[in-house]
Amino acid sequence: MKNLKTNAFLPLFYLVWSDDLLTQKELLTLQEFIRSQVWLSEEEKQSLVSGIEIATPPSRKQIADWKKEIEEVVSGADSLFDISLALSKNDETVKEHKTAFEQLENDLGILGEEAIGVFKSKADTFTSKHKTSSGFDVSKLTAILDGEQAPIINRVKSILIRPEFAYENSTDIGVYRSKVYEWCKILASENLGNMAYPKAYGGGENMADYFAIMETLSYHDLSLVIKFGVQFGLWGMSVQSLGTEKHHKKYLEDIGSLKLPGCFAMTETHHGSNVKGLETTATYNYQDQTFVIHTPHENAQKEYIGNAALHGQMATVFARLIIDEKDYGINAFVVPLRDAKGKALKGVTIGDCGQKMGLNGVDNGTIRFDQVIIPKENMLDRFASVSNEGAFESPIPSDNRRFFTMLGTLVGGRIGIPRSALAAARSGLSIAIIYGDQRRQFGPEGGSEVPVLNYRIHQRRLMPLLAKTYAFHFALQYLTGRFIARNEDEMQEIEALAAGLKSSATWHTRDTLQECREACGGKGYLSENRIDALKNDTEIYTTFEGDNTVLMQLVAKNRLAEFRKSFGHMDAMGLISYVYENARTVVSEKNPIVTRKTDDAHLLDDQFLLQSFQYREKTTLASAAKRLKKLIDSGLDAYDAFNVAQHQMIDVAQAYIDRVVLEQFQLAIRSVGDQKCRSTLSKLSHLYALSQIEKNKGWYLEDGYMEAVKTKAIRKMVNQLCWEIREDAVPLVEAFAIPESCLGAEILT
Amino acid sequence: MKNLKTNAFLPLFYLVWSDDLLTQKELLTLQEFIRSQVWLSEEEKQSLVSGIEIATPPSRKQIADWKKEIEEVVSGADSLFDISLALSKNDETVKEHKTAFEQLENDLGILGEEAIGVFKSKADTFTSKHKTSSGFDVSKLTAILDGEQAPIINRVKSILIRPEFAYENSTDIGVYRSKVYEWCKILASENLGNMAYPKAYGGGENMADYFAIMETLSYHDLSLVIKFGVQFGLWGMSVQSLGTEKHHKKYLEDIGSLKLPGCFAMTETHHGSNVKGLETTATYNYQDQTFVIHTPHENAQKEYIGNAALHGQMATVFARLIIDEKDYGINAFVVPLRDAKGKALKGVTIGDCGQKMGLNGVDNGTIRFDQVIIPKENMLDRFASVSNEGAFESPIPSDNRRFFTMLGTLVGGRIGIPRSALAAARSGLSIAIIYGDQRRQFGPEGGSEVPVLNYRIHQRRLMPLLAKTYAFHFALQYLTGRFIARNEDEMQEIEALAAGLKSSATWHTRDTLQECREACGGKGYLSENRIDALKNDTEIYTTFEGDNTVLMQLVAKNRLAEFRKSFGHMDAMGLISYVYENARTVVSEKNPIVTRKTDDAHLLDDQFLLQSFQYREKTTLASAAKRLKKLIDSGLDAYDAFNVAQHQMIDVAQAYIDRVVLEQFQLAIRSVGDQKCRSTLSKLSHLYALSQIEKNKGWYLEDGYMEAVKTKAIRKMVNQLCWEIREDAVPLVEAFAIPESCLGAEILT
Repeated sequence: MKNLKTNAFLPLFYLVWSDDLLTQKELLTLQEFIRSQVWLSEEEKQSLVSGIEIATPPSRKQIADWKKEIEEVVSGADSLFDISLALSKNDETVKEHKTAFEQLENDLGILGEEAIGVFKSKADTFTSKHKTSSGFDVSKLTAILDGEQAPIINRVKSILIRPEFAYENSTDIGVYRSKVYEWCKILASENLGNMAYPKAYGGGENMADYFAIMETLSYHDLSLVIKFGVQFGLWGMSVQSLGTEKHHKKYLEDIGSLKLPGCFAMTETHHGSNVKGLETTATYNYQDQTFVIHTPHENAQKEYIGNAALHGQMATVFARLIIDEKDYGINAFVVPLRDAKGKALKGVTIGDCGQKMGLNGVDNGTIRFDQVIIPKENMLDRFASVSNEGAFESPIPSDNRRFFTMLGTLVGGRIGIPRSALAAARSGLSIAIIYGDQRRQFGPEGGSEVPVLNYRIHQRRLMPLLAKTYAFHFALQYLTGRFIARNEDEMQEIEALAAGLKSSATWHTRDTLQECREACGGKGYLSENRIDALKNDTEIYTTFEGDNTVLMQLVAKNRLAEFRKSFGHMDAMGLISYVYENARTVVSEKNPIVTRKTDDAHLLDDQFLLQSFQYREKTTLASAAKRLKKLIDSGLDAYDAFNVAQHQMIDVAQAYIDRVVLEQFQLAIRSVGDQKCRSTLSKLSHLYALSQIEKNKGWYLEDGYMEAVKTKAIRKMVNQLCWEIREDAVPLVEAFAIPESCLGAEILT
Repeated sequence: MKNLKTNAFLPLFYLVWSDDLLTQKELLTLQEFIRSQVWLSEEEKQSLVSGIEIATPPSRKQIADWKKEIEEVVSGADSLFDISLALSKNDETVKEHKTAFEQLENDLGILGEEAIGVFKSKADTFTSKHKTSSGFDVSKLTAILDGEQAPIINRVKSILIRPEFAYENSTDIGVYRSKVYEWCKILASENLGNMAYPKAYGGGENMADYFAIMETLSYHDLSLVIKFGVQFGLWGMSVQSLGTEKHHKKYLEDIGSLKLPGCFAMTETHHGSNVKGLETTATYNYQDQTFVIHTPHENAQKEYIGNAALHGQMATVFARLIIDEKDYGINAFVVPLRDAKGKALKGVTIGDCGQKMGLNGVDNGTIRFDQVIIPKENMLDRFASVSNEGAFESPIPSDNRRFFTMLGTLVGGRIGIPRSALAAARSGLSIAIIYGDQRRQFGPEGGSEVPVLNYRIHQRRLMPLLAKTYAFHFALQYLTGRFIARNEDEMQEIEALAAGLKSSATWHTRDTLQECREACGGKGYLSENRIDALKNDTEIYTTFEGDNTVLMQLVAKNRLAEFRKSFGHMDAMGLISYVYENARTVVSEKNPIVTRKTDDAHLLDDQFLLQSFQYREKTTLASAAKRLKKLIDSGLDAYDAFNVAQHQMIDVAQAYIDRVVLEQFQLAIRSVGDQKCRSTLSKLSHLYALSQIEKNKGWYLEDGYMEAVKTKAIRKMVNQLCWEIREDAVPLVEAFAIPESCLGAEILT
């Protein structure tokens, strides 16, 4: 193609023959175009068309030559047509037909500005240049996260990195269970199991440290944490909280040393969430002052009981107390299961739950009792007892209320579990983020491949989860503090808070580990990279210690009860001022200037963010209350009404928890001394808040609290924050300070 | 309390002492209230207050007596105060203080209308009465789903229910792999593996049946399906599609009979998604007319290759063809790996990927080549060949384009995988829905427990997923049909469709199995109930055969290219009419009457629903195109621009796929003859469509296509449809007709 005019077609020829996307159909389009150009001679047309016959493709050399010619002129070109013009040496006729050429580009589906990139080296795009660059001192942030528990956390880590804590990779369930049991014994010998028990029984009387131990252990094998929690938390704490001095004296020391492994036997096959309906019975026998523990039918057997299948020698068994054929509701009893050699005692039948999705190092089992006799003193009698004469005695006359009071003392489990879950999420994020910073895939034409963490979607997948993980950390610290310093009056609030945080933190962990698995691609699927274990072990966290969906409804009911106490007789105006009560901008809140306000300073204003959360919390609560009242007023049974409004109940609980999490995150940040850490945490809190708003933008738009222009600005800001936090992402997971041997992912070594 | 006036307090006393939620604080509130009532004498006050001292609770008998008294008058009462009044025998003074009593109820946080339920039997609430009641003939629906493939589907099922296909529960990976291999041999001997191969080589030449086989096998062990797919699909089809007659003659019959187990070796450690960057080389050697296959460094080893770790004797290896030190891009070669005894050949090093999250019956491995020599005829030379003289020849000069053309012929994998995924989702839904219909938990006061499937939240969790599963079925049938009847021109559209449906169907399966696991609670966590295997086996479906996120971007790029071809030079008006072109209500579409229209007939109108989907598809596409153009016009490199807009790209792809799925669902329903089946499917299509709109309501509100009143009405309608479909839910999963032995969940037996 020496003809200068026809040279103008060269870039298109090259693209048609080299482009990955264009089909043979385009050859026809190009041929037609050429034939219709009046400024080309028949000869020129013929020559051009022959160059794009499917049957006679250009040689590889020909294509390479075209590329060379183009590359010589590309530097000054801003469009494909610029190249055509340059190749035709600024031919006037070509210049005149600019529009036609551009139309052709469109007909071919070529985006000229994009296509031109094929000829330019773009190794220096800003996407490729983005990278890790720590904006703060990692060890300082770790110190902020660990707080006063730093010494115990470090002690636990120093134990976990010992060679004897090397992961057990056997798929033989027996081998795995033995290993986990051995690990528990080591931890007991280090006085970690009894950390929360009274000093009188060898314990540390330190509940805060106990929670920190649970959390830190969760960087290691999660079967270990659960086995540990069953023994020292569920079994030990039930004896401590539901029993009295005689039980403490008799059992606590041996439980704390793991000399007396035991179980917490509440759940039955037919009653999991609805524990009020448990059917196991404990019948008082006047004659010899004993209780007879009995499983009335197969589906009333105890199920999923940790420590039961192999190691438990005793269990706290929840059973209906029957005296003189009268039912006194559910009470707790210590029931021996096995002798010291591990043989099941008379009347006790133990089954094995077998293989599970995860936590296979925990020996979950079923327990059935056939008229098992236990002495009277085995009733855990802090909240109810039976006199020698068989009279039932309790300071709490309502059976249900007594049972829920008993359960309330065990709320610690709903703090330990979300903290363990969050630790697992941290492990997953550490693996996925460090890998995403190393793994390169795709890149600009002519440049090298780019870390996948530089891709916006990859950031969108991981950064909001990282922010939320930080947010939950402070919320769970707050919950722990409230629990430790609790008084009787606050119990219901703390129980609701624990139920809500347990649910949302474990769901968060589920979502996080799912995203981490996918973000690591095939590597995430190999067990050697540990996401397998993390994901499958925590899968049940959303179910045990209370099914999340059921718990969220409890939270909502608690919020509704609180609401009614304050605002039961509230009229429309009262409701409105309730919704706005904490808002600085009471009047202007819903005016067009605010609902459309989109400047950065506003979107990143802590007060605006918290107010948005409070507004959602209060509005969903008030509207659920009104809805329920309306349904019931209209003649619906309350049970039906709650079912009809069940979806709203979950919203109420979710909005409440979201607000608490943001509030505590903001509060915690305010007390951070180090400026760099504070500013990094602050950015995370903004991302957390804005991505929650984005997630709920449908709600905000429906309500009119925000207009489209604002929710769109928020989406943009979320993208921007993801992009910025990506730089700090690796240091942010390093601040979790998870021991390398615990992380244990092959891809990071 | 014989005093008639003081009797009025009896209901409150009862509630305070018996209610699960009230705390001791309420006792104080009640005491204060009593003390402040001027119409009570000091004596009466004293007597009342003493009845609610924390230190001296009433006896159990006292509480029971209160309840009895209340129950005698409750029948006519509509409020708590009605009871008080009745108990006081309509005392005038009490009547006067109605407001005060109601205020007290509020202060105590009691919802009177709800509390009154405690005293009434509510066994007949409508929530408890809701139940399964089939509205159609299950076998007719099965026939509609199976269509023309019913005979082969039934044949496969008849094989899968044989005793030799009993599930292998060993956690020993070796045992499991052997079993899966044995199963594959049985299927090969039944002529199922070679179903798509030419008859000349023993095959059935029936691609439609092949896909139906893959899908039906997916009701059984998913390792089996993948092993089967690797052998007969990836390995066999690569020989068939990329090779020429000499290869077909030499290999196809032995592949189809499983005499020659093989692999598909594309992915390398450092190149998974970006396969253009593969680094394995195939260097042509003139001397002896051979190729030398070589792995240049550790991270260029082939990875995750199915059939490699144990059984594969040969592999289709993708490698860069090098002739005279010049790189001719990626081509495919048949490379022997092992001798018939299973020993790796000289220069071939095979590793084992080891334990995975799932699919442990498939022997995935790594392969490294150290200067392995293969004869020239082992190049699969349909799209490119090397002459004896070493000249490279190909009808497709662009290396990338040739590679993508080769990959295009293998698009069948992206049809088999989503169909397999959907089958797994069906298994999960069958288990969760049948269990949800049987499992009872909670219930109205005094009534029996209620199937969990009657709870709105449980319906919300499962019914939309059931509807979407039905929707995807017809979309995948459509895709299969398009693929089988394809011509060259349609390939890019079909590839995009396959990529998009593969991604969204596998994500749907991920979400469905997650929800099924949680909906089954602890039972869902036990391996014996199969959700474990279904979930973990399909976990990798979102990654293999193309990472979903990457595929969705390809889909978007394809849509953008199509868009540009038609509308590259479009002005603002053109764009608007493009967006509205298919809408019946062109003018009125965005007018307030339509954006606020909420009547049932409108919300359930197929045309309205499809238009909403089309509108979203077109608007997201046009806006992404504009955005990209703007970014590039502003000087951004195209690579950066695509990264900035990556989030929108996913939206474009998702909206496109959503529309296709709804359109095909609606089309399929129209051709259903049986009226009852049609009306049930139609209800499912409404639920699918409305829950997708609900999911995207933020978008519709931002855009102004819908107003709040409409999105709220849609939420209500989704609830209503869930409630209605719950009645048909069990028959709807029964229509999947999954053999019981395949479902294999203990909880259903």
